Amino acid sequence: MSLVAEWSRIEPALVDVDLLEEMAQGFQAYSAGKCVVPPVGELLLEEPRGEVHIKYGYVRGGEHYVVKIASGFPGNPALGLPVGDGLMLLFRQDTGQLARVLLDEGHLTDERTAAAGALASKTLAPPDVRRIGILGTGVQARLQASHHARVFPNAEFLVWGRDADKRAACAADLSDIGLLAAPADDPELICGECTVIVATTSATTPVLRSDWVQLGTHITAVGSDTPEKQELETDLLARADRVVCDSLEQCRLRGEVAQALRAGALDEGAVVELGAVLSGAAPGRGATEEVSVCDLTGVAVQDLRIAEAVHGALG
Amino acid sequence: MSLVAEWSRIEPALVDVDLLEEMAQGFQAYSAGKCVVPPVGELLLEEPRGEVHIKYGYVRGGEHYVVKIASGFPGNPALGLPVGDGLMLLFRQDTGQLARVLLDEGHLTDERTAAAGALASKTLAPPDVRRIGILGTGVQARLQASHHARVFPNAEFLVWGRDADKRAACAADLSDIGLLAAPADDPELICGECTVIVATTSATTPVLRSDWVQLGTHITAVGSDTPEKQELETDLLARADRVVCDSLEQCRLRGEVAQALRAGALDEGAVVELGAVLSGAAPGRGATEEVSVCDLTGVAVQDLRIAEAVHGALG
Repeated sequence: MSLVAEWSRIEPALVDVDLLEEMAQGFQAYSAGKCVVPPVGELLLEEPRGEVHIKYGYVRGGEHYVVKIASGFPGNPALGLPVGDGLMLLFRQDTGQLARVLLDEGHLTDERTAAAGALASKTLAPPDVRRIGILGTGVQARLQASHHARVFPNAEFLVWGRDADKRAACAADLSDIGLLAAPADDPELICGECTVIVATTSATTPVLRSDWVQLGTHITAVGSDTPEKQELETDLLARADRVVCDSLEQCRLRGEVAQALRAGALDEGAVVELGAVLSGAAPGRGATEEVSVCDLTGVAVQDLRIAEAVHGALG
Repeated sequence: MSLVAEWSRIEPALVDVDLLEEMAQGFQAYSAGKCVVPPVGELLLEEPRGEVHIKYGYVRGGEHYVVKIASGFPGNPALGLPVGDGLMLLFRQDTGQLARVLLDEGHLTDERTAAAGALASKTLAPPDVRRIGILGTGVQARLQASHHARVFPNAEFLVWGRDADKRAACAADLSDIGLLAAPADDPELICGECTVIVATTSATTPVLRSDWVQLGTHITAVGSDTPEKQELETDLLARADRVVCDSLEQCRLRGEVAQALRAGALDEGAVVELGAVLSGAAPGRGATEEVSVCDLTGVAVQDLRIAEAVHGALG
């Protein structure tokens, strides 16, 4: 067994991992109060601009704790580099000894985020999903589509992003991996066509307006993981019949729920956690015509679950 | 250049590093406001008991940011394992890309702590130091003695710890590496003999009483890095002519200064930072008969400096 694993070894090991099940177990443990997850550590760089998140924690009685470092540097693509980078570290809970270094270059964070998004949509979508809208055209847009395609194998994808070339390229890439996918000219059009919408942008002003959203729509938002970013109009959360998030504690400070709470548009008591919905402790979707929103900011227990699963698969 | 370096490669590279100078530069940059150092991340394990600290930050305009993970598991020695473990990660400030993984098993944290202690004593000790007292008998006791011996090459060391066998063993180990060292039966005796005292224990109730300490003594305390641990009576900080710490922001929450502030025994305005003393921006020791205390809780800039220095030495 080698202590350090690079992405070239991690990627094939991922094939053996049921990521949706890992995320489901992780969220349920979290919402049942079995996890210790301190507030996210954050390091902001100014010139060039970049942000680094450190997420860490453990499940009580488990084997490991995780420390995950992930960065986003928006100027990287101009240098021919991916925006994101990162790695995950597993340590033994009984001795603090390093158990595994996963040099995944940020891919495991992308994968667990996409799996959580697909899990949220599976849990909260109305019946008979035919079209799924993807807002954003980056790595996460592609991964959300491919993870959603496993949950909704017959669905067609409509992709929107501000840049027409990028949405065409993203739709083409999705077609290349066997998905039914087409670009959409504006997000309002997506709202008219899709009953599941996945928001994956790094917008700081909303890209999805409440009055565009039809009855019987579920929206999963994964783009905002800071106090500043926002993809959904706060009115949409105010109007939704069901607002779900990954972590109430974290979403008081970060993401769509935090924006809506700060705007006074949402009452904290109206928000439930995905893990509680999964376990049956909180209600999910009611009638088909309800509007539901799930806000995912990314919780360390997801990093723990994917890292432990890969660690096990590597042998 | 290999991305990952293990301790067997790091240890020889350390020989080329002037750690006292690295720490001096780091503390000065910190106290001049050039660093971004968020609050320490902390993860506490309950069964078995362990604590994990995550320290991270950067110097503005520098090349890297650092993330350092260090753990302490008091039950480890019973399993034949060292109490501490850890690693340091360097990332590029301009892209977030991982620059180096230093799998140092916690040794770099031990080394930078010992170098900072020796630097503090060098900066604040009265003239003509003949005997140095070491409180504690663990790894840090040994390292503080050897780093102090480089600064005070003619000094003799007196070692005290609660366990008579351990203090004898520690003194014998120091003699083996060429130091003049003897065990002392109690800490009061050390106070009578030594004008520099280095406290390295993980005590949660004070081991050093104020009324034992003679005029003209300097005390460097490195053991307390949490809100709970305490090696020095708060009266000692109240009485000291000069109280210095590594980071005012951090020492409001952690270490000896935090204990004295909480007890109302110390006024925050009376505390200065080591970096400010080193740069001449704040006063250090005045008359020979003054009592000075330096409280070191460990700041991420120390981790950054030692990691960058080792990174450079590794080539």
